[in-house]
Amino acid sequence: MTLDRLFKPRSIAVIGASTDEYKAGYQMVYALRHFPGELYPINRHADEILGFKVYPTLSAVGRSVDLVVLAIPAEGCARVLKEAGEAGAGGALIISGGFGETGEAGKSVQDEILSACRRYGIRLLGPNTAGFGNPRAGVSANFTPWIGELKPGPVGVVSQSGAINLILAAAMYNQGLGISLATGIGNGADVAVSDVVEYLAEDPDTKVIALYLEGVREGRRLYEAVCRAVEKKPVVVFPVGQADIGDFAVSHTGNLIGSFALKKAALIQAGAVLASSSDDLVDAANLLSKVRLKAKPNPGVGLLTGQAGPGMVIADHLRSHSVNIPELSASTVERIRGLIPPMTFIRNPVDTGRPGPTFREVLLAMAEDPSVDVLVTFAIHEPAVIDPVTLFREMREEVEQPLVFGTAGFSEHVSPTQKELEAIHVASFISPDRTARATCALVEDAKAAYRRARPAQDFDDLPAVDPIKSAPDEAVAKSILETLGIRTPSRVVCGTHQEAKKGLLELGGPCAVKILSPGIIHKTDVGGVHLNIRTEDQLVSALEQIDAIETVRERGYLIEEMAPEGLEIIIGAANDPGFGPTVLLGLGGTAAEALNDVVMRLAPLDLFDALDMIAELKSSVLFDGWRGGALYDKREVAETLLKIGRLIGHHSEIKEMDLNPVRVHEKGLTVLDAVIICE
Amino acid sequence: MTLDRLFKPRSIAVIGASTDEYKAGYQMVYALRHFPGELYPINRHADEILGFKVYPTLSAVGRSVDLVVLAIPAEGCARVLKEAGEAGAGGALIISGGFGETGEAGKSVQDEILSACRRYGIRLLGPNTAGFGNPRAGVSANFTPWIGELKPGPVGVVSQSGAINLILAAAMYNQGLGISLATGIGNGADVAVSDVVEYLAEDPDTKVIALYLEGVREGRRLYEAVCRAVEKKPVVVFPVGQADIGDFAVSHTGNLIGSFALKKAALIQAGAVLASSSDDLVDAANLLSKVRLKAKPNPGVGLLTGQAGPGMVIADHLRSHSVNIPELSASTVERIRGLIPPMTFIRNPVDTGRPGPTFREVLLAMAEDPSVDVLVTFAIHEPAVIDPVTLFREMREEVEQPLVFGTAGFSEHVSPTQKELEAIHVASFISPDRTARATCALVEDAKAAYRRARPAQDFDDLPAVDPIKSAPDEAVAKSILETLGIRTPSRVVCGTHQEAKKGLLELGGPCAVKILSPGIIHKTDVGGVHLNIRTEDQLVSALEQIDAIETVRERGYLIEEMAPEGLEIIIGAANDPGFGPTVLLGLGGTAAEALNDVVMRLAPLDLFDALDMIAELKSSVLFDGWRGGALYDKREVAETLLKIGRLIGHHSEIKEMDLNPVRVHEKGLTVLDAVIICE
Repeated sequence: MTLDRLFKPRSIAVIGASTDEYKAGYQMVYALRHFPGELYPINRHADEILGFKVYPTLSAVGRSVDLVVLAIPAEGCARVLKEAGEAGAGGALIISGGFGETGEAGKSVQDEILSACRRYGIRLLGPNTAGFGNPRAGVSANFTPWIGELKPGPVGVVSQSGAINLILAAAMYNQGLGISLATGIGNGADVAVSDVVEYLAEDPDTKVIALYLEGVREGRRLYEAVCRAVEKKPVVVFPVGQADIGDFAVSHTGNLIGSFALKKAALIQAGAVLASSSDDLVDAANLLSKVRLKAKPNPGVGLLTGQAGPGMVIADHLRSHSVNIPELSASTVERIRGLIPPMTFIRNPVDTGRPGPTFREVLLAMAEDPSVDVLVTFAIHEPAVIDPVTLFREMREEVEQPLVFGTAGFSEHVSPTQKELEAIHVASFISPDRTARATCALVEDAKAAYRRARPAQDFDDLPAVDPIKSAPDEAVAKSILETLGIRTPSRVVCGTHQEAKKGLLELGGPCAVKILSPGIIHKTDVGGVHLNIRTEDQLVSALEQIDAIETVRERGYLIEEMAPEGLEIIIGAANDPGFGPTVLLGLGGTAAEALNDVVMRLAPLDLFDALDMIAELKSSVLFDGWRGGALYDKREVAETLLKIGRLIGHHSEIKEMDLNPVRVHEKGLTVLDAVIICE
Repeated sequence: MTLDRLFKPRSIAVIGASTDEYKAGYQMVYALRHFPGELYPINRHADEILGFKVYPTLSAVGRSVDLVVLAIPAEGCARVLKEAGEAGAGGALIISGGFGETGEAGKSVQDEILSACRRYGIRLLGPNTAGFGNPRAGVSANFTPWIGELKPGPVGVVSQSGAINLILAAAMYNQGLGISLATGIGNGADVAVSDVVEYLAEDPDTKVIALYLEGVREGRRLYEAVCRAVEKKPVVVFPVGQADIGDFAVSHTGNLIGSFALKKAALIQAGAVLASSSDDLVDAANLLSKVRLKAKPNPGVGLLTGQAGPGMVIADHLRSHSVNIPELSASTVERIRGLIPPMTFIRNPVDTGRPGPTFREVLLAMAEDPSVDVLVTFAIHEPAVIDPVTLFREMREEVEQPLVFGTAGFSEHVSPTQKELEAIHVASFISPDRTARATCALVEDAKAAYRRARPAQDFDDLPAVDPIKSAPDEAVAKSILETLGIRTPSRVVCGTHQEAKKGLLELGGPCAVKILSPGIIHKTDVGGVHLNIRTEDQLVSALEQIDAIETVRERGYLIEEMAPEGLEIIIGAANDPGFGPTVLLGLGGTAAEALNDVVMRLAPLDLFDALDMIAELKSSVLFDGWRGGALYDKREVAETLLKIGRLIGHHSEIKEMDLNPVRVHEKGLTVLDAVIICE
């Protein structure tokens, strides 16, 4: 646990400690005034700050300190870090900005401090971050005064933004929820988001990791850190960047915001649960800090409501987020029918039409239904008719399933109940929507666990492909695909009209005639593709049009048999600078491209992942006999995705590749065009 | 204001008043115990309840009462209502269920009570509702005890669900926000959602209407009520029903849930602002109760943030919801640059990198930028560096634009500030997400106002179309379209092969040959459509295939010229049982249909509405030269939508019509197939 000296220090020095209460150097000492370990304010011109003895230099302390907090401008940091290194410091925190986020000059200052840290084995938090709080260790290394009042608890908060770190920690406090660590990352020069995720994954006090994410520099590392963390505890992430806020993001932490779709896909694939707002993140972390569902492909929610309206709001939200609210078995329904007034809905949701004395019995009946994996209860705050604290205290003993409680009412009435529920580790939410969203997170976590748990199905081995040269032409690209057993049309590569005529005869049917020139990627746009060529006359006319295309590179002709009809899709792959090898599947055709129906995954992926990709396409119904159409070969598409994933993963020389269109048949598929672009 | 005797009664009788505190009849008297008018508990077997004199019958009261509350089972209600009518009651509230929501028998009991009300001019709330609260009038006609503690204020709450009514009212209370009326609707036998919307639109104490909606029986009436209301005050709606919760909804209020897409489209078209959760509804109502933006097509948000992270969250949410955050003018940027530390982002959002003494000056500079229509400020709660109460008290005097404030921190610190801000009518929200969502609502309201304010562009007159017979065939349907000036292919209707041969010659080019039989709607599926027929041989073969199709109705042939290429779309229309005449636009083709890219509007619509429909298609880029493609004739599509809207509006005999596909060209369009289905 190499970050322990940083996040659980037993001694702290504050460089730039100040007696001026308007300065960060004062505020930091103030924030740390209750720190149970040794605190050393460092300042050449002061003797005492807030009752603490001040040392003129770090070396004057005369012993090694775990954490050195730098509350000084950027230009002085490198020197101090060297001094700290000599003095045996284990961690450092730099609050100031003026580093990588400001441009080239700042980047080189950042590189300088980083190399100092590396040389001395100092783990550096920041620069350009408000710091962190660790209530259990009594550390509030953050100049926001109230961070010292956070309660110790189960949530580890990691935020690129120091302010969002505070916002999340405060929102958790407001829910009575404690934290194990709440830290900003800032520029993340050394300690990156993924380092803290790894650290919290191993931290026994952390039950759930809550993460706020802007741009990710090392996407693959984060992906891998999350993959490992979710084996031990849930990870909930709120990513921003779906709209164009890239310039602002760079000015903030110096990190490019990157593709939102890819970031989202990678996080889900890693097994994280995504939140769509900071509030959702807090609610999800709250629930997941208390309960986790067993791995299951489609967990069933049993929804008991004391009032129909909120039950409807919850059911509507859950169903429209693909959460299963299974119909209860006939025997359960029968049992419940005997417990509540007639005329309410009881197949699930179960609406008691106002909670009554039988509420508990109904909940038990639902818990015994085999389709119910989690019990969600909603009841407006009415102490006269329902006492949730007594109810759930009993229920926790009597039922196996996780419990979720939603309620509503005046804060001053509901808060005490929520506090009591928090004390018995039952999460409660003060609106139907929040209840529903937290439940979604619980279910998503279980679905992700199921995806991880299923045995991977992959090819044992695939033929090796030789390293690929810089700009393979279409014929070469297709030969590579064929090596992997991916079907492409029969073809003849020709250098002259004469060869082309011979080729047409050889292939013996209507053919496609294309220009073959690695410099030209959009062949159709320049008139380089001619379809359904049957006669020699047609062929000559096509070749002449191809000859008229301007190109500086060598030019040949590709004569191919026409492929059978089918559903057109796009398969793509890239070696992303951040996330490494990735695979993309999209529906083909102009309309689909305009509607941007694509799904991404990091490679390698297994057969189930690939089938999931097909299912995730908004247009996936087209594979399944849509409007009396054909059933297309999903298995073959999935296998192709796997193979392409292997290829891109093993060939870092490939920058991106694009199989577009791929025609899927009832049996098999044919790649009609293939482009491979290398670095 | 015909609902005044119901919602602002000066005298109330409670039928079924009880001394048993577990009965609703006791709880209702208890809830009304502070009612400032006359309260008459009615019970044959009691003398006094909670200090109120009890009357044996309503007539024994000896004077007319404004509101009669029935806390008795369904079967006794009709009799009591007659008695109430005789006694001159103006309003009635029935709490019990057991009416329309239970099925046929219940429906007839409901009809009975309704006819009693109509006969005596009683306005009935419910049945099957928890009632209402009107703090200003001192009425809490609802057995939930705390409804009496609601504060009077600007928000009118209307909810089909009585429980959601309570939840919304409580959430508003928790924000320090008062209500003018908070009412459930229940089955809405007499007083429907639209009646209350109309009532609140005229109510001077109501500044904003907040509406929770399940199924709508009289969609068009609600649409019209909202259209009128938004001229005076904002209307915010949270509709449920996007997922399949129809059975549950019917069991709740007896109303079919209907098409979610149509409900949503109609509400937006009427000028309402949509909320996606009950929490959003409360936040939007809070903000809109205090400020409203001027009508504008794309209002500009000036976003000032004390911290980059939350600014990013807000900007990301706004931008991904099409809210404009305009770049500030060079002179504004220059002015701000002089006010805050270097290296922060200031083009808008303006990030002060922690709020400082110049925060106020920066806000003023932003307010003077002509692109800024609303000022959104976010700052974490830090009393040492920013005092939002002082700041916004001044700002309210100094700037014209509406102000929105977002903050975060511990509730016990932030709440007092929020209360003070509430007192000076500045809305504040305790998270970046909530700040962003409320801002979206403000902007949506202004965009809707702009759409209403623009002068309608419509055809002065269109040729009249004769009433349409039950099942017009394709040729007749197309002639109707032609009457309206909508282009269809040249065609010949033929009864025999001989006529068909003549027709092919007449049309003189490649033709489509189709079966003409009003019983067959899906012609392609049965082999009834043959394209690109050029020769007599091809024609005969096509006709023979058509002859082989089984049909019980008369059969003819339609020979049509082939239409030029273009972008395929779908135009539909229907007379919806709830919403009346509606028009639909969708992208054509299999993929687009699978992706369900459709937009709906109520008819009549004007040219701007129709152009908005095109712009709202997810695939609207296809009209605008997508990937070097053509620019398609949007104007002609818009005019066609208008004409179809007129047709469906004037011809109630049409149940639905489907122009599919319609081929849009660079100039004009051609309807390739048309189906009109009548009742």
